[in-house]
Formats: sequence, C-alpha cells, structure tokens
Amino acid sequence: MRQYDKIDLPVAEVRRYLEPGPIVLVSSAWNGKTNIMTLGWQTVMEFVPSLVGCMIAGGNHSFEMIRQSRECVINVPTTELTDQVVGIGNTSGAEIDKFAHFGLTPEPARRVKAPLIKECYANLECRLEDDGMVDKYNFFIFKVLTAQVAKSPKHPETLHYTGDGVFMVSGKIISRRGQFRPEML
Amino acid sequence: MRQYDKIDLPVAEVRRYLEPGPIVLVSSAWNGKTNIMTLGWQTVMEFVPSLVGCMIAGGNHSFEMIRQSRECVINVPTTELTDQVVGIGNTSGAEIDKFAHFGLTPEPARRVKAPLIKECYANLECRLEDDGMVDKYNFFIFKVLTAQVAKSPKHPETLHYTGDGVFMVSGKIISRRGQFRPEML
Repeated sequence: MRQYDKIDLPVAEVRRYLEPGPIVLVSSAWNGKTNIMTLGWQTVMEFVPSLVGCMIAGGNHSFEMIRQSRECVINVPTTELTDQVVGIGNTSGAEIDKFAHFGLTPEPARRVKAPLIKECYANLECRLEDDGMVDKYNFFIFKVLTAQVAKSPKHPETLHYTGDGVFMVSGKIISRRGQFRPEML
Repeated sequence: MRQYDKIDLPVAEVRRYLEPGPIVLVSSAWNGKTNIMTLGWQTVMEFVPSLVGCMIAGGNHSFEMIRQSRECVINVPTTELTDQVVGIGNTSGAEIDKFAHFGLTPEPARRVKAPLIKECYANLECRLEDDGMVDKYNFFIFKVLTAQVAKSPKHPETLHYTGDGVFMVSGKIISRRGQFRPEML
C-alpha cells in the first residue's frame, strides 16, 4: 500500500479534506490498545477554532475508547484503501487488532496518543472539545490540533458512502455489497 | 432546467442522499418571504427518528428565518445546478429573491411552509428538533418529516465542495473560482 509524503496543513484549512463528505477512518488509543473505525457521519463545524462534529454510534468498540481518552485521529483514505475501509467497518476492535489485521501502519501522532494511519491521505489529530451532545446523540465535537496531508495528488479519489454497501467515488460506483455483513447493510 | 419525477422515500433512508456529503440547498420561509442558501456543513445524525445536523453560520440571511420558523427544506442539487449553487452561495436573500433570480421553481411542501425546489433531485422537509446547540455553535438538529426523491437516475452527479471555489464531482473537478466573490473563497 502506498504511503504518502506529507506536509503540515494549517488546521483552519481541514475543510478541504472533510467538507466533500468522504468516509474517514477514526483511530484511537486507550488502555494500551488501539482501534480504527469507519465513519461517514461527520461535518466541519468551524474554521477557527478548527471544529469537527462526529456521530459515533454507541455500538462501536471505539466509542468508549474515544470517550475515555478524549482524543482521536481522523484519517482520510482514498479509493486505494476501499477493501480496508469496508473491512474495518465490518469488524470489531473487540475481536481483532485492526492495524495488524488490515496491514495498516500505526504512526505516532504529535499531540495525541491515538496513532495516525500512515497509508491515509490526510491525518487530523483531534481532542474532544465538547462532550455535551454525547449522552443524547452520540455526537462528539472535536478540535483539530494539528494536521498532515499528502503533497500529491491534489485531488485524490475518495469514497463517499451511500448505504447499502455502495460508495460513490469520483463518478464511478464501487459496490462492495458482497463484502458486507447483512446486518451492516 | 430539468424537473424530476419524484417518489416518496422513507425518511429513515435519507442517508443515501446526504451521507455522501453533497452540497445542499436549504430553502426557508418566514414573514411572507422565502430564501435559499447553499450548505456544505451537514451530517446525518440518526436513522429513526431521521435526524440531520446542519451548521448554519449566523451571517446567512437564512439563519434567522430558519431559527424563527423552525423549519426548512433540504434540497439536493445535481451538477446541472452548479451555476445556481454558486450563485446562491454568493448572494444574499436580504437583497434578492433567490427563486426568481436563479429561475428556480418553488413548490409547496406537505408538512412545512418552506417551499421545495422543484429542480432539485431530492427534497427533505425538516422541522427543528433541537436548538440546544444553536447559540453556541450555530448547529441546528433537524428531524426529516417527509422526503421525495427523483425516480432516476439512481446515482446522479452531485457537487462536493472543497473550499476555494472548487467542487469535487464524480471524479472530475469543476472550478468556479472566477464566479466567487473574493471574500467567499
């Protein structure tokens, strides 16, 4: 898998990577373990401070890890990682080590304990800014502390999930329905 | 401009239209006037009830109209409406009637007073469910009451905004930078 050369991105500019609405991989660390989850329900909320809102359903193994550690990394994959995105979204960190299982490289972050995913195109290190909506909606408001993004390509192909195992991608549709557990569709 | 034949969509399924992260057009009505704004900061929050969270910056003319009326329609445009999307995002409803100015057709909604935009591919009628985050973050949580979507095409080209006047679309990039006011870039 490709590993990108990255440069720092001012955190006020992360909208370029998140506003188009790609599926992201959220990595976390807690009690000596790491995990990764697939997330499609997120929105930019502010430029300065750089805020991102994420709906993390309580059934995810990552939910408590992120709530307890109050940190995560939002990693943006490209279509090269489609199999990993689907696999990560259809397995549980309670049962497997997702970095090892999916052949992804954890890289130490600068500002948080959660590892970056080296094979992702962008890595946004986040701290929980406001947990006031977590109990009611599972909605976490994160502040982006620092961000690194690939130097090129400028506009990579990203995955945009429509449900039902289907991703929209750069005008083409990649269906991985057959790789989904029925209850995840 | 194309006007789609539409069918009802169960509101629990609106994620198919919103989760990929397209730019949407939010229509509203208040005090005998209507308005439309362009929005890229939204996320699905729940299937049942069908909840959508929207960051509507306070500078928008629509902000007070939606806050007061507690209703809106989230309309999903395709790339056919790129010029309208850009135009709507770069003008103010305080100065022009956006339906008339951009040649869009307001259609009565079923459950709210805000009009649908007939030329959009999907129309989601929404009621403000929770305004607890409006004062602090300009974040509105809407409940989708009813939804109508085009019968075809199944996967239309939608617009995904990256900032800087550039939209990602189905693998191609459409730059409308020249049509943006400098302060909007």
